[in-house]
Amino acid sequence: MTDGRPTGRVEGVHHVAFAHDAASPVLDAFREVLGLEVAHVEPGAGFVERMLPTGDGCHVQLLEACGPGVVDKFVERRGSALHHVALAVTGLDDLLAELQDRGVRLVDETPRPGGMGTRVAFIHPSVFGGLLVELVEQPGAP
Amino acid sequence: MTDGRPTGRVEGVHHVAFAHDAASPVLDAFREVLGLEVAHVEPGAGFVERMLPTGDGCHVQLLEACGPGVVDKFVERRGSALHHVALAVTGLDDLLAELQDRGVRLVDETPRPGGMGTRVAFIHPSVFGGLLVELVEQPGAP
Repeated sequence: MTDGRPTGRVEGVHHVAFAHDAASPVLDAFREVLGLEVAHVEPGAGFVERMLPTGDGCHVQLLEACGPGVVDKFVERRGSALHHVALAVTGLDDLLAELQDRGVRLVDETPRPGGMGTRVAFIHPSVFGGLLVELVEQPGAP
Repeated sequence: MTDGRPTGRVEGVHHVAFAHDAASPVLDAFREVLGLEVAHVEPGAGFVERMLPTGDGCHVQLLEACGPGVVDKFVERRGSALHHVALAVTGLDDLLAELQDRGVRLVDETPRPGGMGTRVAFIHPSVFGGLLVELVEQPGAP
């Protein structure tokens, strides 16, 4: 902490997530219109997650609803739409402890396993006025 | 073009844009919770655009509605929410010409000036099943 603010431990954008249904053209569009390719696929609870690297360490994440769950609920309520932004951080455990001490509302008070060997935690969207922010720590990060 | 796909000219994520109203806590939250700072402010038609660098060449873009316009309309319809994703590209003119040749629906058929000296063009959200994608070419890019 310096002057009441956390020492900056955000290192970049890890991914931007778009939630969609199975009929969406979004995956084909990223491949055919912009030449992005899927580098990683991972099943979740009621969804399939696809990661498309953008070449700079960031990714577009496509969350396809395929059963009951949070993605399905989101798509039902909002239609296919951007779902969250994930920021790459270092020192995730310390950062979460600090945020908890400061009374920042968290979805995950301790990190949980994310895709591609990462550790992740979500901040409650009320903190950012409706924006869901995920914190992602890369495998092997300090 | 190679095998029917464009040669990949996406170089990364330039920014992720979140649209909000004046009462939103989002700006203070990024500053106080995550230590991000505003590096650039630019007025738009009915909105103020704030760019918060994330340290890796990407930015969080906050679009604050402050009068009638597209941001205001979006926030009225959806509430404060993620608005678009902007991808950094090189060869924007060629890419747009190629997309037009291929019948890809564009919001901007030729680049227009974006913030911070960039040139930008939006692809129509119907192409990506509701996802608004902006293409951004940095000043001085090839």
